[in-house]
Amino acid sequence: MNLPAALLDTLSQQFPGDAMATGMAERLAYAYDNSRRNALPDAVVFPTTHEQTEALVQACRAHRVPVIGRGRGTNTTGATVPVDGGVVVSFERMNRILRIDPDNRLAVVEPGVLNGDLQQALKHHGFFWPPDPSSSPWCSIGGNLACNSAGPRTVKYGSPRENTLGLRAVAGTGEGFRCGTYTSKGATGYDLTRLLIGSEGTLALITEATLKLTPKPSALRTLRATYRDVSAAARAVARIMAQPVTPCALEFIDDVALKLARDYGGDGVPLAGAMLMIEVDGEPETLPSAVDAVSRAARGDGLEDLRVAETAKETEALWSARKALSPAQRTISPNKINEDVVVPVSHLPELVDGIKQLAKKHDVLIVSFGHAGNGNLHVNLLPRDEAERERSHACLAEIFALVISLEGTLSGEHGIGLVKKEFMPLALQASTLHLMRNVKAAFDPEGILNPGKLLP
Amino acid sequence: MNLPAALLDTLSQQFPGDAMATGMAERLAYAYDNSRRNALPDAVVFPTTHEQTEALVQACRAHRVPVIGRGRGTNTTGATVPVDGGVVVSFERMNRILRIDPDNRLAVVEPGVLNGDLQQALKHHGFFWPPDPSSSPWCSIGGNLACNSAGPRTVKYGSPRENTLGLRAVAGTGEGFRCGTYTSKGATGYDLTRLLIGSEGTLALITEATLKLTPKPSALRTLRATYRDVSAAARAVARIMAQPVTPCALEFIDDVALKLARDYGGDGVPLAGAMLMIEVDGEPETLPSAVDAVSRAARGDGLEDLRVAETAKETEALWSARKALSPAQRTISPNKINEDVVVPVSHLPELVDGIKQLAKKHDVLIVSFGHAGNGNLHVNLLPRDEAERERSHACLAEIFALVISLEGTLSGEHGIGLVKKEFMPLALQASTLHLMRNVKAAFDPEGILNPGKLLP
Repeated sequence: MNLPAALLDTLSQQFPGDAMATGMAERLAYAYDNSRRNALPDAVVFPTTHEQTEALVQACRAHRVPVIGRGRGTNTTGATVPVDGGVVVSFERMNRILRIDPDNRLAVVEPGVLNGDLQQALKHHGFFWPPDPSSSPWCSIGGNLACNSAGPRTVKYGSPRENTLGLRAVAGTGEGFRCGTYTSKGATGYDLTRLLIGSEGTLALITEATLKLTPKPSALRTLRATYRDVSAAARAVARIMAQPVTPCALEFIDDVALKLARDYGGDGVPLAGAMLMIEVDGEPETLPSAVDAVSRAARGDGLEDLRVAETAKETEALWSARKALSPAQRTISPNKINEDVVVPVSHLPELVDGIKQLAKKHDVLIVSFGHAGNGNLHVNLLPRDEAERERSHACLAEIFALVISLEGTLSGEHGIGLVKKEFMPLALQASTLHLMRNVKAAFDPEGILNPGKLLP
Repeated sequence: MNLPAALLDTLSQQFPGDAMATGMAERLAYAYDNSRRNALPDAVVFPTTHEQTEALVQACRAHRVPVIGRGRGTNTTGATVPVDGGVVVSFERMNRILRIDPDNRLAVVEPGVLNGDLQQALKHHGFFWPPDPSSSPWCSIGGNLACNSAGPRTVKYGSPRENTLGLRAVAGTGEGFRCGTYTSKGATGYDLTRLLIGSEGTLALITEATLKLTPKPSALRTLRATYRDVSAAARAVARIMAQPVTPCALEFIDDVALKLARDYGGDGVPLAGAMLMIEVDGEPETLPSAVDAVSRAARGDGLEDLRVAETAKETEALWSARKALSPAQRTISPNKINEDVVVPVSHLPELVDGIKQLAKKHDVLIVSFGHAGNGNLHVNLLPRDEAERERSHACLAEIFALVISLEGTLSGEHGIGLVKKEFMPLALQASTLHLMRNVKAAFDPEGILNPGKLLP
């Protein structure tokens, strides 16, 4: 235990009974996230109110002790790993949906509400909240906001930054504040709402969010297109995104991933040079013409097979390859390096070709798939032994350099956390980083909020 | 002339010939904006490059001289009036469209490009940039970004904050920097892009913007609905926004405004208790069902007449009332007080009723119209003499208090500038304002960028 006794006293009063944990078992349970990085916190607290969170930050600030906000730890970048110890604030007990207001197309939630639970609650009202990370059933809205976590639907409906109206939060100064609006439009001062979204808990702890809801289209159609090679598929993505009908999902899966998925998932998974999974949504009257438009764009040089699911069962069958992918990867390598680079869509063919070449050059197994409609590729390096692991790191640096040269950036939706912060100077100018550090100091002068993350 | 001689020397070298103006005629021409406020700058400069803008801010910072960015001065809040003198930076000569990239759905522009010119250039590519202030033919993109200026289409397509991917800018520190991405998605550090949008030139001067483009729907249908009274119309707005088909414009015009427009514009303008102008866009196959859905929602208690334009000529006729409104107001009062409050859509009926009562109580002529789909009302007070002018100011304070009590905020799209900054503590907590001041200091430690604006 490294916490000063005085702070521990204060915290015990603020978080009585099981609202605080200092035993080794609990500390271990909150030491890691999905990055597989690990560092022990000195204590874990479970606030249930905004006021408690305010008091916590004030107490920790007085003692210069780190405060690390945590949703459900599903992020892959180490953003919630307490590298300098301190107090982990788990928002899992602040999990109430405070208000669903369909007339104003908004919902007010506490940060610990699970993404999937919110979607379920919204269904009855005919609305949804667009961000849909693949961890949706077990990741929290607070975490989604902290990391600007997106998902397949972003291509049509945007990320948390486009789907949040306002926040309540506690800055590193210990000040509680509200920002943003309950209205769908606003020009009253600086946009602190978007500034907090994606700041990975380094500026403030979010204690409440006003989310913008979208009416749920009543119909959805799934298409699966296979291509001769990755370049042909990538060119089809660029064609699809250059025409007016925007699909609500446009997922890319490369040949290596397909093979893996087939080995694991069986014959239902097609063998091809690459595959696109496409979803188009709309109203029953409009859907056929939308599907036509997207199908036309999907066709072209290198297309091997294009199927449109007509039933729920067929839809499920088409998605089987994508679903088999995550467990299949785990069978190959427990040390997966999971990246989510992003480039302008038209540069996707160069990116997938370049990654193939780098995989060959460094003799590393790379599986690429992801949200191609946004140019956002999950590039997973799967080292099978220590030597390949070392080669992977060299390869990764070259992948980032390639991405930057293609006008892309380091992360589309996973964020920076621990694992990518050293690469930030590749993506951002020194002056931009300097201003980001100034912004950090404006919210958190002592640097107690999630130290060691995001900024190099 | 109040500029230090040394600074004037430096500026003369940086801005040779007609790139700088210090004569009284030019200073007068850049002393005002559409707020009718007025203050003389000491000099006006016309940069043509980012580098020149950087050098300018560095020079002014060294002498602690104010720097006021300016697009075309169409804003109504005094945001570009140089209240403390200093150097006005007019971006009118940085007016090149640098890149139109339909494959990536983006355009890169200099800040002086006119909104209307950009829309024209995008037409050939089948795209548009959603923000469409009514000053669109003569306002600049830089000004749109600085003020988060929106317009009718925002109800469906969002404001500049939802339609900008990245910026290049010069902070008050004199540092040039890039923020944001060329990609449609990104989670690489703090969102400085949105922070600058709507900051009214108080954090940085924007020298380049990467704008997100939207495919232009190929068809548009205009509807006009008249109602017995403002409450009935406001309730119809709430109904329209609670169903899934979002119109691309949903404009409200109250009885006083209609009468004014008819006096000025003739019999084509209907007499009614209130009117909605509705536009629905889409593809030819989808439009009829969308128009049906919106029409159903527009019907209800208090509807008097619902017309759907079938031809371009009919569309024009339906819009005549809205078009006659601005010139009509000018015939009444040269001292129009032009507000743009915003409330959650479901509170619109209470807002329009409340405004009616306040107009009566203070004996002030008030005309209300605006972007009702966002709950954004332009509340125009039209004092006809000095006594009414004084009563108007008392009335205005009560309007703001009403808006806040209805969970609304001070500005939907005009911003704060000079004229609303004293009301900011009504809308924002002291802690939020304190953090905004910290953010200001992070970008502009000497407070040279547009002093006296936005923050009280």
